[in-house]
Amino acid sequence: MMLTGHNYIAGETSAEGSETFYSVEPRSKSRGEQAFTSATEAEVARAAAAALAARQQMRGFSSARIADLLDEIAVQIGALGDDLLRTADRETGLGLPRLTGERDRATGQIRAFAELLREGSYLRAIINSGPPSIRQMQFPLGPVAIFAASNFPFAFAVAGGDSASALAAGCPIVVKAHPGHPATSELFAQAMTAAVAAQGFPPGAFSMLQGAGIDVGQWLAAQEAIEAVGFTGSLRGGRAIYDAAAARPRPIPVYAEMGSINPVVITQAALAARSEAIAAGLVGSVTLGSGQFCTNPGLVLLEDSPASQDFIRNVSAKMGAAPAGVLLNEAVAAGLASAVGQTQANPQVSLLAGGEPSVGEAFSYENTVLQTRAAAIRADQKLQTEHFGPVTLFVLCEDAEDLRATINALEGNLTSTLHAEADEAVADLLSLLREKAGRVLWNDFPTGVAVVPAMQHGGPYPATTAPATTSVGTNAIYRFMRPIAFQNLPDALLPAPLQDANPLGILRLVDGEYTQAPLV
Amino acid sequence: MMLTGHNYIAGETSAEGSETFYSVEPRSKSRGEQAFTSATEAEVARAAAAALAARQQMRGFSSARIADLLDEIAVQIGALGDDLLRTADRETGLGLPRLTGERDRATGQIRAFAELLREGSYLRAIINSGPPSIRQMQFPLGPVAIFAASNFPFAFAVAGGDSASALAAGCPIVVKAHPGHPATSELFAQAMTAAVAAQGFPPGAFSMLQGAGIDVGQWLAAQEAIEAVGFTGSLRGGRAIYDAAAARPRPIPVYAEMGSINPVVITQAALAARSEAIAAGLVGSVTLGSGQFCTNPGLVLLEDSPASQDFIRNVSAKMGAAPAGVLLNEAVAAGLASAVGQTQANPQVSLLAGGEPSVGEAFSYENTVLQTRAAAIRADQKLQTEHFGPVTLFVLCEDAEDLRATINALEGNLTSTLHAEADEAVADLLSLLREKAGRVLWNDFPTGVAVVPAMQHGGPYPATTAPATTSVGTNAIYRFMRPIAFQNLPDALLPAPLQDANPLGILRLVDGEYTQAPLV
Repeated sequence: MMLTGHNYIAGETSAEGSETFYSVEPRSKSRGEQAFTSATEAEVARAAAAALAARQQMRGFSSARIADLLDEIAVQIGALGDDLLRTADRETGLGLPRLTGERDRATGQIRAFAELLREGSYLRAIINSGPPSIRQMQFPLGPVAIFAASNFPFAFAVAGGDSASALAAGCPIVVKAHPGHPATSELFAQAMTAAVAAQGFPPGAFSMLQGAGIDVGQWLAAQEAIEAVGFTGSLRGGRAIYDAAAARPRPIPVYAEMGSINPVVITQAALAARSEAIAAGLVGSVTLGSGQFCTNPGLVLLEDSPASQDFIRNVSAKMGAAPAGVLLNEAVAAGLASAVGQTQANPQVSLLAGGEPSVGEAFSYENTVLQTRAAAIRADQKLQTEHFGPVTLFVLCEDAEDLRATINALEGNLTSTLHAEADEAVADLLSLLREKAGRVLWNDFPTGVAVVPAMQHGGPYPATTAPATTSVGTNAIYRFMRPIAFQNLPDALLPAPLQDANPLGILRLVDGEYTQAPLV
Repeated sequence: MMLTGHNYIAGETSAEGSETFYSVEPRSKSRGEQAFTSATEAEVARAAAAALAARQQMRGFSSARIADLLDEIAVQIGALGDDLLRTADRETGLGLPRLTGERDRATGQIRAFAELLREGSYLRAIINSGPPSIRQMQFPLGPVAIFAASNFPFAFAVAGGDSASALAAGCPIVVKAHPGHPATSELFAQAMTAAVAAQGFPPGAFSMLQGAGIDVGQWLAAQEAIEAVGFTGSLRGGRAIYDAAAARPRPIPVYAEMGSINPVVITQAALAARSEAIAAGLVGSVTLGSGQFCTNPGLVLLEDSPASQDFIRNVSAKMGAAPAGVLLNEAVAAGLASAVGQTQANPQVSLLAGGEPSVGEAFSYENTVLQTRAAAIRADQKLQTEHFGPVTLFVLCEDAEDLRATINALEGNLTSTLHAEADEAVADLLSLLREKAGRVLWNDFPTGVAVVPAMQHGGPYPATTAPATTSVGTNAIYRFMRPIAFQNLPDALLPAPLQDANPLGILRLVDGEYTQAPLV
């Protein structure tokens, strides 16, 4: 594959700007060879205009036709072969085994959306036969801007879940690539561009913009043609895009998945039964991918006791003994040092392990364990700041009531976890944890996010800006669709999914009954 | 029924403020006898705190229990009897026949939500049996602030669709009553308070605040405990609440249903076939309820021709001949005069009928017809301003291309309508109209909004701030819910709708199949 360093705008490469940047290999901090050119405001506007034109052309496209595009994208990604894995590994330091798995996950979720489209019930067709005849189904929202993340260069980036769900919804997309892995992004752009052409979609259905700073994203979110934003990244970045989108003359929704500290509560009974296993699992989850997961368990709450102190000592020892992993880039390394520093500035916080950048050639940070008391975290909301890396903060509670009060004081998270024994009376604790997250785990760890329809990857602010939505799983498609109802429309003018005969054979809610049968 | 003029906060009446106001009877402009006291900021905070406390207590309430509350509310509203109708008629001038129908509609939609809750599929239970076992369903979002509208004192006010859907979702509500009908609002507050008590719900599940100005609403939307806002009213008011909610430290969604001009397109073939019938239908729709419907057809587009000019002359004559109705209040009357004045200030606009306040005792305005050309409305977005009252604006287009370009230039609306003949090639025109609205009508008029599951009462901005949602029909419940997934949770700790045995017998999506069967 040839890299150009250009932007991909509706099937053409373009590099009109004067700002260039390079990827930096995190293992050696050495600069990549290829210069990448940040998009100009005019190029951003061109991508948005092309997306708007594509929207017009795609108005009549069937679900089956969109499904073919998705399958083609998965094929084209596969055709990138080991080049893709090696390029991403150089740019992110995530390692070939992880990246191989992530590639399968990315193409798997693209194919899952294709399957969803062919099955058809996702259209949520509802028919009231009337009179008046009123029939509704979901339609694409229009051009979507996608902001790629750094920590999942395949699954949450140019061809990641946000892109797949927006395309599946029938929306053209304009992706702002993450500057941490521009070569990887360009390879994906080539695959997407090839797929769009091969399937006869309008070229404006896909564009990808490079950008070293925040300008390109700000320009993109301000484009009148853009109807929604999908974002995965930091709280600061997500909130900035949210604020900009809300202040537009015509506001648009921003589906931002941002920081999360993913509280874990461990009961004394659980510690009594399996302290060692929980410690090992926790350390594995905190250090997985060098802790660069949005579901990283960054906060552990437990009642103070000798057993808890033994557990914390054990975790600290394991964390100290585990090798420090590579961090994605300089910004992550600097942000992590700053966040740990801010937490340590609270005099109620003590450091039990790590706490410094690792010595060596790579961007890296020691596996770090911090500890504080419940009263301190209730008194200082800054102690709920995410440490994006291999760091966890233990919170010692005086008793069960102190624990409950502290859970109540938590901000929103993607996940919350309870380690307990099945015969404990924990229903109320679970319902408290439920209020604080989009996914509640029992005797498990949050870092694996299964791509299944029941998955909910979202949660109350600041975990996301839209807790009623998910960015993983097939329900992610509804972020980019809206219902339209037709009243008294003749059968021949209705979209096929709403016609009397139900020519697609999909599940519909007809006069209160779910059925695949035609209207009689 | 005794009126107190107080606020209803968690089961108690309260009137700590010094600002009082009165209702004004629109037919006579005479002041009502009862003084109403605007809530203070402390009272607003107390209502929000009570709602938060109720949220904690309601965490474990089943759908069936909430359904009982809804049924009880409908019963209590019925028990208000003719007092309610007479009070609302005095305060709004809408007339007893309309209000009788609207009461049935309001209690009907409350009972429809009760039915939805008992049926259970609204929970959208999804189960992936795993491993890992992941199971999700919808949960209440938390306390909701409701802003009542003036034009539907029953169906979009204290016990209207927003309140019913939020309560159905399991959310406590704090309603900001509309100052146009404070006595009517108090009667509803009494019915709601009685229902909450009778069904043993925590009193904070319902509060109602009076307020003459904008302060009470601004205080309410800023309360930390509030998780979402339902609003029906003007673009200016809705946008102000949207902006305030987006600027909170923790932003919350605002579901605002605001202005709409509901474009109607009439083809030449339709005019040739049924000009007189369309004219009569249009005039009936424009003047219904003195034009005070959010779905009022305020813009009619047609190609210029002798037939079109005949049609416009006919409509203008009928509009001039129809009696001018009563407007809700002084603010509506003043706003209408101002909006018509702004439109007439455009030199491309001519006045064909009406255009002045009616002479007489009541708040009233002549049935008004305005006309302009397509190029003018494309050149001046202000011509898309809603005239909230019995007013419509004809837009003459040069040809089919001019018509298409003008539709493309329209902002978002609740509805769009096409009058055409079945043998015309209008598929493309329909798909253009689809992009601009939440409901598309064929040979019909938009002012009736059937309360059925297929109804979509929403649309792109500025019609609403959330085009993917509806404020009419059972899907309105999803504005106030969010999904939560459980991973590996033991069966006994799962909510009943997600347990293996499916004890409620609801429809669930289990491993890709929709089924009411238990897991095996």
